Amino acid sequence: MSRLIRKVSFQSPVIRHVRSVGSAPPTKKYTPRRALMYVPGNDERKVAKIPKLGADCICLDCEDGVSINKKLEARTNIRRILDERSVDFGQSECSVRVNSVESGLCEEDLKAVLGGNNLPMALHLPKVDEPDQLIWFAEKLNEFLLHQGKAVSPIGLIIFIESARALMRLPEICEQASLLRTMCPIIPEALVFGSDDFVADIGATRTPEARELLYARQKLVTVAKAFQLQAIDLVHIDYKDLEGLKVQSAEGARMGFTGKQVIHPGQVSVVQAAFAPSQDRIEWATQLIKEFREHEANGHGAFTFRGSMIDMPLVKQAQNIVDMKDKL
Amino acid sequence: MSRLIRKVSFQSPVIRHVRSVGSAPPTKKYTPRRALMYVPGNDERKVAKIPKLGADCICLDCEDGVSINKKLEARTNIRRILDERSVDFGQSECSVRVNSVESGLCEEDLKAVLGGNNLPMALHLPKVDEPDQLIWFAEKLNEFLLHQGKAVSPIGLIIFIESARALMRLPEICEQASLLRTMCPIIPEALVFGSDDFVADIGATRTPEARELLYARQKLVTVAKAFQLQAIDLVHIDYKDLEGLKVQSAEGARMGFTGKQVIHPGQVSVVQAAFAPSQDRIEWATQLIKEFREHEANGHGAFTFRGSMIDMPLVKQAQNIVDMKDKL
Amino acid sequence: MSRLIRKVSFQSPVIRHVRSVGSAPPTKKYTPRRALMYVPGNDERKVAKIPKLGADCICLDCEDGVSINKKLEARTNIRRILDERSVDFGQSECSVRVNSVESGLCEEDLKAVLGGNNLPMALHLPKVDEPDQLIWFAEKLNEFLLHQGKAVSPIGLIIFIESARALMRLPEICEQASLLRTMCPIIPEALVFGSDDFVADIGATRTPEARELLYARQKLVTVAKAFQLQAIDLVHIDYKDLEGLKVQSAEGARMGFTGKQVIHPGQVSVVQAAFAPSQDRIEWATQLIKEFREHEANGHGAFTFRGSMIDMPLVKQAQNIVDMKDKL
Repeated sequence: MSRLIRKVSFQSPVIRHVRSVGSAPPTKKYTPRRALMYVPGNDERKVAKIPKLGADCICLDCEDGVSINKKLEARTNIRRILDERSVDFGQSECSVRVNSVESGLCEEDLKAVLGGNNLPMALHLPKVDEPDQLIWFAEKLNEFLLHQGKAVSPIGLIIFIESARALMRLPEICEQASLLRTMCPIIPEALVFGSDDFVADIGATRTPEARELLYARQKLVTVAKAFQLQAIDLVHIDYKDLEGLKVQSAEGARMGFTGKQVIHPGQVSVVQAAFAPSQDRIEWATQLIKEFREHEANGHGAFTFRGSMIDMPLVKQAQNIVDMKDKL
Repeated sequence: MSRLIRKVSFQSPVIRHVRSVGSAPPTKKYTPRRALMYVPGNDERKVAKIPKLGADCICLDCEDGVSINKKLEARTNIRRILDERSVDFGQSECSVRVNSVESGLCEEDLKAVLGGNNLPMALHLPKVDEPDQLIWFAEKLNEFLLHQGKAVSPIGLIIFIESARALMRLPEICEQASLLRTMCPIIPEALVFGSDDFVADIGATRTPEARELLYARQKLVTVAKAFQLQAIDLVHIDYKDLEGLKVQSAEGARMGFTGKQVIHPGQVSVVQAAFAPSQDRIEWATQLIKEFREHEANGHGAFTFRGSMIDMPLVKQAQNIVDMKDKL
Repeated sequence: MSRLIRKVSFQSPVIRHVRSVGSAPPTKKYTPRRALMYVPGNDERKVAKIPKLGADCICLDCEDGVSINKKLEARTNIRRILDERSVDFGQSECSVRVNSVESGLCEEDLKAVLGGNNLPMALHLPKVDEPDQLIWFAEKLNEFLLHQGKAVSPIGLIIFIESARALMRLPEICEQASLLRTMCPIIPEALVFGSDDFVADIGATRTPEARELLYARQKLVTVAKAFQLQAIDLVHIDYKDLEGLKVQSAEGARMGFTGKQVIHPGQVSVVQAAFAPSQDRIEWATQLIKEFREHEANGHGAFTFRGSMIDMPLVKQAQNIVDMKDKL
């Protein structure tokens, strides 16, 4: 059994439809997602390759990678993969992308994906344009998970930003997302920049240098980090151009993205290298955490480290780097 | 008579000061505005050239192209042009730029421009800084149009964003604009980036590469598209530099702008070429619409086209491309 | 005595905790801040160099330039500098950076800095992330200044934007800042981009070209100007690289920044030159305004000047340049 598929335990319904206000919000271990790879849920040939992909996050897709007349097949197959644990995800996170709230397909997707005893580690919700779509999503999630009396550990939520409207309303979308964990067993963890839908929506044309997307990418990184979310960068569609992929990945990492979408197995290792912390960063983080623990033991909060005042956010960043190093 | 000057029909007052909430909002055919050309309303020599300009949109100007002691002359002359239909606009849209709400001149401009039997196809409102200015504008419009019992088909509204404050409040300005069609016979259709006023307001200096304006231009495109508005790019003031104009126009088009302001007849054709859809895009759009109609006939909503899920926004984008092709 | 240290006059308490709504807001002469230089408040060697620095604004630092175990020493020393007027600031503005509201150190800093008879011209508040921090700051300010019955002329406030959250909420932070002058004797005057904290917060990596910071810098300029605030650009950390400093300063000036942070005396003159209008620009602006006035008198709006079409926006840009020249 893959260790990253959650096991649902049937218990008395201790988790209620709406968590009581005073209860602590759910927490979940940090999952680095340097390379987020799509595998169409209905494509048996590609599903069979999962054990060898090595991507940090495998996204079993019900959405854009699946044609309209294969939707039922995709969601049924994904449910079977979860139920039978027949596919070895190894170190990869097992996650599922459902169709968008607006598509009219999302409810059936959730019903299938959440209907069994094993749940994915994370759900991807594409084409989020309005905060209200997240409320609908949370209600559906509770409907399928909780009325059966299932007690689940929280599921990660990965939100796709793919339109002008979504980018414009991004702070409100993230504000609503941050409230979800009080409503249902969901923890928002990442924003994904759906660049090609975005480009179509604003009528732009992609260039190799992607100057036309600077505003969108940098706003997405900023808002993601303001809400402590991961930021996952655009797809490099020309999957044979590994040199271009390397350049684009490095730039994304410099901008503050934490990972990148990949569409071909050959892209995984290039992307992972670009989004892995360098030796310098690992040394910085390790030493910072060591000194933080010493200061904490002595009752000090903020302290100076290599000329910078260190407080909790920086300690958390350092911890993320060390966590990522530990996982690699 | 130019086919693009609207004829006002005198009727019983079926259109009221404020449309009733339940009534359908007014609609108006899509007018591509690749090249938006200014002609000072008082400059007879330039007005005489209108028939040969070939710009998609001719803007008879009362504002920055007209000095303060010629304002009366400009608005009187524009009224005469509309009344007498003496100028052949050919395929060009006949539109008028009034002075800003803050200028204290706007009311007199509107009174003159809207006082006759023929109305312009569109009005340009410069230096919109606050949503409230649009409400004032709508009220004045109703005052001059509707109390006379004129029933008019809707007039397009082109909003100029020319200051730091306007850019900051752009979503609120567009939100207010989108409500105007329930208040008066106005349909917001475009945002124009008034780059030189903007540059003066933020104290920047223009460079040929315009890196200093990336944030402003890309935010404007994003918000425009979030509200389904056209986005009209900056002026290239060095009107002899057609090569530079070509480069800048192409970049604007790649960013998602739908057109560009021009200040000299020699700029029109260069700009139109850059903002016209390519043969590839026309073929894509034509085929997409054909398949959409087939799926629609079979009762399907979303469908897959060349690997992408197609829904209404993409169909509308395709329709705009075909419409533009049909007009060329 | 340095002319730029304010003298507090003891009077009956005419300035109250909250100014009455109808009273005119306080005003303060415009202080250009091309070069903003940090001097750690506890570093006697660096304090001694102040008379020769020539920076437009000297920032006596209690914050990041001072280690945690030197905070008391720094604030005590700054109080002594203000009280004794022992340091000649020459033409430089005397200002103080306290620690952030979140640090837990700000109250003690303010108590020391504001406790004497002489006050700094301006206060720098770092790491402002939320509008509410400004309200807390205003209340503390009033507590230390006003209950003693001191009538003070207004103190400038310089706000540091150093996180993703601060950048996201920048309009709300500035909106709150603009209300401060009705609450306490403070006039918000500038935003500073704290680039290194920002970069750490979003997980970015600095490059020489700083493409990764375009969104942050240009949003900061835009919002600053929307609130009539100065915008002070990032530090060039490699203080020996004067050529790189020159390039970066020039670009900041072109973007609309009004000044730059400096960390070494050798950086001051390079930065000041970049943020002062050049002789060429002054000559261009002076001549353009002269010709504009002639054309205006003759009833022309737009006119051609050195190959470019000139209208009001460019006239405004020219006026900005002449205004700045007059202020230096």
